[in-house]
Amino acid sequence: MSRLPTEGFAFEVAASCGAARRARFTTPRAVVETPTFMPVGTQATVKSLTPDEVEATGARIVLANTYHLWLRPGAELIDRFGGAPRFMGWRHAMLTDSGGYQVFSLAERRAIDADGVTFRSHLDGAKKRLTPEESMRVQRLLRSDVAMVLDVCPPGGAGRPEIEEAMRHTTAWASRCLAAPAAEGQARFGIVQGGVHEDLRRAHLDHIAALPFDGIALGGFSVGEPIETMYALLEVLGPRLPADRPRYLMGVGTPYDLIAAIGSGIDLFDCVLPTRNARNGQALTWSGRVNIRQARHREDDAPLDARCACATCRTWSRGYLRHLFKADEMLGPRLLTLHNLHFYGALVAEARAAIAAGDYPSWARATVARMREGDEVGEEA
Amino acid sequence: MSRLPTEGFAFEVAASCGAARRARFTTPRAVVETPTFMPVGTQATVKSLTPDEVEATGARIVLANTYHLWLRPGAELIDRFGGAPRFMGWRHAMLTDSGGYQVFSLAERRAIDADGVTFRSHLDGAKKRLTPEESMRVQRLLRSDVAMVLDVCPPGGAGRPEIEEAMRHTTAWASRCLAAPAAEGQARFGIVQGGVHEDLRRAHLDHIAALPFDGIALGGFSVGEPIETMYALLEVLGPRLPADRPRYLMGVGTPYDLIAAIGSGIDLFDCVLPTRNARNGQALTWSGRVNIRQARHREDDAPLDARCACATCRTWSRGYLRHLFKADEMLGPRLLTLHNLHFYGALVAEARAAIAAGDYPSWARATVARMREGDEVGEEA
Repeated sequence: MSRLPTEGFAFEVAASCGAARRARFTTPRAVVETPTFMPVGTQATVKSLTPDEVEATGARIVLANTYHLWLRPGAELIDRFGGAPRFMGWRHAMLTDSGGYQVFSLAERRAIDADGVTFRSHLDGAKKRLTPEESMRVQRLLRSDVAMVLDVCPPGGAGRPEIEEAMRHTTAWASRCLAAPAAEGQARFGIVQGGVHEDLRRAHLDHIAALPFDGIALGGFSVGEPIETMYALLEVLGPRLPADRPRYLMGVGTPYDLIAAIGSGIDLFDCVLPTRNARNGQALTWSGRVNIRQARHREDDAPLDARCACATCRTWSRGYLRHLFKADEMLGPRLLTLHNLHFYGALVAEARAAIAAGDYPSWARATVARMREGDEVGEEA
Repeated sequence: MSRLPTEGFAFEVAASCGAARRARFTTPRAVVETPTFMPVGTQATVKSLTPDEVEATGARIVLANTYHLWLRPGAELIDRFGGAPRFMGWRHAMLTDSGGYQVFSLAERRAIDADGVTFRSHLDGAKKRLTPEESMRVQRLLRSDVAMVLDVCPPGGAGRPEIEEAMRHTTAWASRCLAAPAAEGQARFGIVQGGVHEDLRRAHLDHIAALPFDGIALGGFSVGEPIETMYALLEVLGPRLPADRPRYLMGVGTPYDLIAAIGSGIDLFDCVLPTRNARNGQALTWSGRVNIRQARHREDDAPLDARCACATCRTWSRGYLRHLFKADEMLGPRLLTLHNLHFYGALVAEARAAIAAGDYPSWARATVARMREGDEVGEEA
């Protein structure tokens, strides 16, 4: 087992299959088998679910959003409750992002300078200032297991000069984040930017990987670039990420994205897709996407996914789930969220087993083919 | 044990204490200990909860609304799924109302005649016709354990002639409902109207109680009359309701109402209050009402109700619950709904125990006093 720079954290690769690897990430609070998916609990709640239900999907690490919790209810308040995991009743690991991504995507009138970002809250217009030190301070109060460094994530379609400037800020801020105090038992991950430019990505990776981070993340993907571009870059970058530390692909993605990125050696993922799409009536299954609002499910007594062992699939018919969505009943989003996170949990569990068994590529091909076939049926209906 | 008119149903009084009684209502599908509260599952779902969670509150009978299910997804569809209990995955008993109350409160352009009611759907404006026979047909397709007869519930403040006409319709329709076929193993309850007029109530009760119903309900209460008027009438009417059949007070009420009505011999209750108020952030506790949105709960690490054993009270602080409501997170309504139904379940369980122990009046006085004290604290804050 290789110790990570922060006391109490370790990362051990148990098996690999091509670039894919099966590993174990240990934090003072949890043991996280990787590759794994981190459900998003934006406001210290995975929308509609209890922590017990999230745990039952196989998840042992969730993500919470620093920006949201900083603004409401406030980091000092959460600190008084013992930190975000205790506040929400989650017994395993938590990763917090830096707050930067939401500042760039949600906040108003933001202005970046070399020292940080000034913006106005999307909730009440209050003027706020986020710096690397403030992000670390807030995450320290949230007491997450893993804090992310503050980075600048350029928008999709940004030109090369803008991306280079984002990289410069991100590099400088990475060192400042490492210099700031962390909470006890809190690891820190660095973030690699560089857009879709392989040379920039490789150069930035070298800078960030040289710093004593406990893990390395790839940021700035899934911001509008063609998906094949991301897959091609991951094939190059994945194996170049440090082998002895967890590798995290931020904000990604679909089941297809996870399967491709795991094949390139990625260990950790987070994405709002399974939870947000569930609330809109889209289930993700072993047989592809299912839009439960469609009329073809009206009289269907079958479960969402006959292969799935979640409570939703064991208990309710597609016809009943469709009724809940048509009648605007909140049990509908809840039951689809439960299913989607179970499916993501089962998907990464199968991926881990396939890596350990040494047949990841054939498992990946068969799984993708089955999902694509179902997606096509769904789109015809 | 006394058999009820419908095969498979029985009602047995085990103990009484003054007018209050502790009994067991048996249906082909469930054993219901009374007095009890029926959570409202309007659209074949107790909003935000799974049937397992409803069961864990102690409930063994829920109410579903015929009007809503008839309009969406349709009674024929639910019949194809094996009836409303199976459709929603509820293993115990279900009572359906007649649809009449919603026609009077929700539908547009309704017109009552001696044969039934014509109205337009509040969903799509479609013209519909509800008669005693149609109500029984729909409830037959819903396959509830208990079907309610179609009645006319006059609005609060209706004059004596309007109430008398409602009684005439209700009496005539009661016989027509009894003449219509029921589902196998489906009991039928009659409904007594008469507004706040003791003489009308007593006269109508005599008519309805003379018919071979499996239970008798009091309708037309809690429609705006002073609460003391209802309590006084219940004291007179409760003991006059047939002793050998379940007595049901429709659409009532607050914890105070339940305690008073149980003291007058009522066995069954339903009300949207615990579930609707939960969604608005109001918890009902052994120490009175708690509005979780209030600022005084911001830093409170205590549970909603220290006396309550529900998952919400065992797991989360008032501070966290308040955060969920302030952040518009759907877990908030869910956790308060769970608590409120647990509280109602515990309230009726304690009432049953107090009746069996022969000290219902002192239990009722002490419980009411403690809740009133808390209500006052809550209102000051």
